[in-house]
Amino acid sequence: MRQQAAFMPTMREVPADAEAISHQWLVKGGFIRQLSAGVYSILPLGRRVLRNAERIVREEMEGTGAQEVLLPAMQPADLWRQSGRYEVYGPELIRLRDRGDREFVLGPTHEEVITALVGQEISTYRKLPVTLYQIQTKFRDERRPRFGLLRSREFVMKDAYSFSADWESLDAVYRAMYGAYHRIFERCGLEFRAVEADAGAIGGEGGTHEFMAIAASGEDDVVTCSHCDYAANMEKAAGRGVAAGGGTTAVSRDTIPAAEKFHTPGLRSIEDLVTGLGLRTSELIKTLIYLADGKPVAVLVRGDRTLNETKVKNALDAMELELADSAVVAGITGAATGFAGPVGLNATLLVDEEVAAMAHGVAGANATDYHLKHVVPGRDFPLERIGDYRNVEEGEACPNCLEGMLRVIRGIEIGHVFKLGTKYSEKLGARFVDASGENRPMIMGCYGIGVTRLLSAVIEQHHDANGMLWPVELAPFQVHVIPVSHQDEAQMAAAERLYEQLRADGIETLLDDRGERLGVKLKDADLIGIPIRIVVGKGIAEGEVEWKERGNGEPAERLALADAGAAVRRWLEDRRARRRKS
Amino acid sequence: MRQQAAFMPTMREVPADAEAISHQWLVKGGFIRQLSAGVYSILPLGRRVLRNAERIVREEMEGTGAQEVLLPAMQPADLWRQSGRYEVYGPELIRLRDRGDREFVLGPTHEEVITALVGQEISTYRKLPVTLYQIQTKFRDERRPRFGLLRSREFVMKDAYSFSADWESLDAVYRAMYGAYHRIFERCGLEFRAVEADAGAIGGEGGTHEFMAIAASGEDDVVTCSHCDYAANMEKAAGRGVAAGGGTTAVSRDTIPAAEKFHTPGLRSIEDLVTGLGLRTSELIKTLIYLADGKPVAVLVRGDRTLNETKVKNALDAMELELADSAVVAGITGAATGFAGPVGLNATLLVDEEVAAMAHGVAGANATDYHLKHVVPGRDFPLERIGDYRNVEEGEACPNCLEGMLRVIRGIEIGHVFKLGTKYSEKLGARFVDASGENRPMIMGCYGIGVTRLLSAVIEQHHDANGMLWPVELAPFQVHVIPVSHQDEAQMAAAERLYEQLRADGIETLLDDRGERLGVKLKDADLIGIPIRIVVGKGIAEGEVEWKERGNGEPAERLALADAGAAVRRWLEDRRARRRKS
Repeated sequence: MRQQAAFMPTMREVPADAEAISHQWLVKGGFIRQLSAGVYSILPLGRRVLRNAERIVREEMEGTGAQEVLLPAMQPADLWRQSGRYEVYGPELIRLRDRGDREFVLGPTHEEVITALVGQEISTYRKLPVTLYQIQTKFRDERRPRFGLLRSREFVMKDAYSFSADWESLDAVYRAMYGAYHRIFERCGLEFRAVEADAGAIGGEGGTHEFMAIAASGEDDVVTCSHCDYAANMEKAAGRGVAAGGGTTAVSRDTIPAAEKFHTPGLRSIEDLVTGLGLRTSELIKTLIYLADGKPVAVLVRGDRTLNETKVKNALDAMELELADSAVVAGITGAATGFAGPVGLNATLLVDEEVAAMAHGVAGANATDYHLKHVVPGRDFPLERIGDYRNVEEGEACPNCLEGMLRVIRGIEIGHVFKLGTKYSEKLGARFVDASGENRPMIMGCYGIGVTRLLSAVIEQHHDANGMLWPVELAPFQVHVIPVSHQDEAQMAAAERLYEQLRADGIETLLDDRGERLGVKLKDADLIGIPIRIVVGKGIAEGEVEWKERGNGEPAERLALADAGAAVRRWLEDRRARRRKS
Repeated sequence: MRQQAAFMPTMREVPADAEAISHQWLVKGGFIRQLSAGVYSILPLGRRVLRNAERIVREEMEGTGAQEVLLPAMQPADLWRQSGRYEVYGPELIRLRDRGDREFVLGPTHEEVITALVGQEISTYRKLPVTLYQIQTKFRDERRPRFGLLRSREFVMKDAYSFSADWESLDAVYRAMYGAYHRIFERCGLEFRAVEADAGAIGGEGGTHEFMAIAASGEDDVVTCSHCDYAANMEKAAGRGVAAGGGTTAVSRDTIPAAEKFHTPGLRSIEDLVTGLGLRTSELIKTLIYLADGKPVAVLVRGDRTLNETKVKNALDAMELELADSAVVAGITGAATGFAGPVGLNATLLVDEEVAAMAHGVAGANATDYHLKHVVPGRDFPLERIGDYRNVEEGEACPNCLEGMLRVIRGIEIGHVFKLGTKYSEKLGARFVDASGENRPMIMGCYGIGVTRLLSAVIEQHHDANGMLWPVELAPFQVHVIPVSHQDEAQMAAAERLYEQLRADGIETLLDDRGERLGVKLKDADLIGIPIRIVVGKGIAEGEVEWKERGNGEPAERLALADAGAAVRRWLEDRRARRRKS
């Protein structure tokens, strides 16, 4: 492609609303433009990268035997009522009515459609397993779309669904997908981790893993162990149980006096209590009042911990969980917010296992401006629902090997694999007759990759101060040919010849034939990050050009023009060979 | 792909709702399934053909220098208000509100989005012309979705938009697109005609052509000449002006007596008058009362002609045109429907040029059960708005060469190219500074192909009583390898070897490894229509297989198994060479 004719509107300024680095570079480099909050037009350079990502995904999916389909975005609301998700999904689900006033949703995902389809077409174990995938546009009305393609409302996703006769078969498909995901993300040049995850609203009885691209700007916390290969996302990462060293467990409970009310005027938060009374955070019992599907519930975690809403939601099997407002808190505790406590509280009480292990602690007194000390779990409040309700923290012992130390790093979710089991097949009637003649629901899995999001994740990991650094398989072009002077006939002629030769060899090449200064051309070249740059300058008098790889930090090398084509081919072949070896 | 594992749910029965042949075969062959009226899931075989169609379209688009983008389906309603189409588009435009109650539409086409985008990014003639295209899902809430992929509510379209500094440049882009469209449809194996068309709601000042696949089942009438290369769709095809032979023009007007009311009880229609009074249809003046944007208008056409609503709409520059109901007719004419006439009528009067040329005729009297005879155009009613308001008919003289005879054939619209001019660039502010420093709106063109619809159009032309006959470039697989007996080890081993060899050569091959009887396998093979079929049967004992081309009518040939791979390569190369030559 010739740059003069290309639609590549680069910008010098960082867009004001672009917080994430990848968002900034995608806009500055002319890869995307915002149409509306969380809705983007993908411009030619972005489309080329997206096409490459689609090709990689497609090749690896076909490699597992998955078959491509294309399912509708417009889905009858009734299907979603059948699965029960019409109500559950909430305002993220875009709803509309057609001219006949029939209700539809815009698919945020396709479990309903595919399960109904396969259930209708397959009735015997002999046609199982089958895995179907698509690369298709999804719609999710995010509460807070942001970070460009990282959290948008309309995006391209690869979603795959498998249907098996038994769990062993699902396990095999799951493993194949797990492997394909590794290859896809490796080919995209990503540093990533597969982590244990929580199944969330999509449900499912089996395991589930998230694939996380490591990035400081990620929205998710990934928990890993310094010693073993434990990795989970924060929602899922398990607390180790009884605290090692926290609280006041050293003291024998028998010697503890009765709970005692004391005056704590205006000390509402853990911080207030620590600074006002000189207590340690781990001596405090934090009582958080929530509404779970509208019903009040109190959750106790140690003062130095944060509550994990996913764990609480799962424990209660609740669809919605929200922090109660001050009116609700007052109604339940009879006190202002900040003074709630477990003693004498009339609400479901979830007690984190660390709190249960405390000898005694300080808690709110359910009276404004008062707390209780010497509160003993099991003596002063019931321990009926002990569980893991907190977020783990950096430095904790690993719940898996018990030896290593947990680290918390940030990640971007780029893929997700789920063992769904029979959740959807039961509800949507995807049943089959097995080898023994029994009629059973199919065992399902689902497997997603955010394809547009991949572009952002790759840039978060591959950029420098001057712009993007595209891994070769994703790069919009492999080679950028730049004549130094537009007015120098010899340079232009040589650049043109090289361009045509590379194209004839099937190498995607961009020729900067614009009448711009060299500085502008090189700045744009750095910005859009094509892996190989060949500058045609004065050296052409000696038949030489300059070869530079974007971002490898090495200086440009001189090279005979006559050898440039072969050098490019060698370089690409070398990259391919490395991939095959890995 | 191995057929046992493939998701190819073929059916023996024709679906009850499938009127069009292509719809029947697509469903029977397991290429598509309906999710909701006009909304289809594309299954693996269909997706493969669609992918091939997309590849052909992409290659030919890139060949013209067009650059691929991906624009959002969700478009802010405000953009559509700015272009004026939010109101015009009517119920076909799907509207929705997001969680913030902001209005959006689901793009049925992308003029608004692309014009705003390019207008914002390009400001100088030096960056023009530019042509952007996408292959993307469109939404149109059709009043009557039908015929499978031929008229659906969600479909894949290739839409391209060009932006030029002047009309000469637009002409060049238009010609390039016109050429690319020819190549695309030829590669899809289609018999088609490019015909003059009416610009319709999309508007535009320049020319426009529709590409029509010839098919008896088509919904559109295509008018061609037996002598010259005139071709137009019915909406556009021009009447030749003064009728040759129709009406009563032979009589001198001076001798015609005054118009005279006569009793025609119950004779409401042209047919009633012809059978009741023995008149010729061409002696009658048909008066049709319409509401054009709510205002009544009467249109006169000869009794033997039908009215062309597009021509009437264009003449009145009306956004909406609908036949008036009997209450409106009574209000205007004072009579029941069937007795309207032009004499003394208080409404805008459009007179078809054939009516204007009549010496006299019979028309309604604007009184129930009465008509007028000896009605003389110009004497008894004004001839202020004479024009071409009728449909042409088979057998008429050609308006272009005046020598040939018009034929009317049926066609399926598969593509459309438009010279839009400045309609959108004016309204959406896509302006640039030209070489002389003047600020002007860009000159636009737009170019569409219904990509999913292509599949149906191809089947309408390529099928027989047993199923589909896919042209090689579109076929879901090029070769179908069928062992006669699943239980014969030698046959199965040979079939497997051939399958693996063809796949290694990059040839898309389907292996029927199912435990079905040969009859079932061959029936399915005919149904899905893969071009080359290689049957591995008893001949394998002599190292021979059977070669059969789908639909060429020739008997199967015996061939050495060892030569089969080379024969396939030769056959494919031969097809490619033919294409390059054409």
